[in-house]
Amino acid sequence: MLNQSSDLDRLFYALADPARRAIVERLSRGPASVGELARPLPMSLPSVMQHIGILEAEGLVRSQKIGRVRMCTFEPQKLQGAEQWINARRNRVGTSARPVG
Amino acid sequence: MLNQSSDLDRLFYALADPARRAIVERLSRGPASVGELARPLPMSLPSVMQHIGILEAEGLVRSQKIGRVRMCTFEPQKLQGAEQWINARRNRVGTSARPVG
Repeated sequence: MLNQSSDLDRLFYALADPARRAIVERLSRGPASVGELARPLPMSLPSVMQHIGILEAEGLVRSQKIGRVRMCTFEPQKLQGAEQWINARRNRVGTSARPVG
Repeated sequence: MLNQSSDLDRLFYALADPARRAIVERLSRGPASVGELARPLPMSLPSVMQHIGILEAEGLVRSQKIGRVRMCTFEPQKLQGAEQWINARRNRVGTSARPVG
């Protein structure tokens, strides 16, 4: 049972960092360059690129070099696994928590 | 901006482990003792109790000693923060991704 969970492990782990969530939040409003993503974050550009790399590895972000600029795009459907897991937990309780008798 | 995120950091981190998700999945079907939670997990009882402790610290699980047994209950409303964050990202894209013109 535990073996098949690694996708969700990595997805939730990717979301467990405030810088990575800030990057996803920014990209959910539209594509942005690495420089734009880095500007509001209190860290070095290499650190930001490392966070983007983790998000890309999970498929949450795609990036593409356009001329001298690397543009990033958000892939919202990749949040689906996390959303479904959470919904399933909440719904199941909604069903089973009714008092019996 | 990043300072206010620590609740979500810890919530997503709590969900990033297959044993902790297995515990939440079991408890979403109804209360269980620590022993029942430990039985299907491939790890020692102290490890299981450590995972339960992390879930309790996030408020996802409550536990109470009844006689000689510690019973655990799931608190589904504590998933709400994660659910809302994910929904907000997906919905925003749904709105802004429409082609203009």
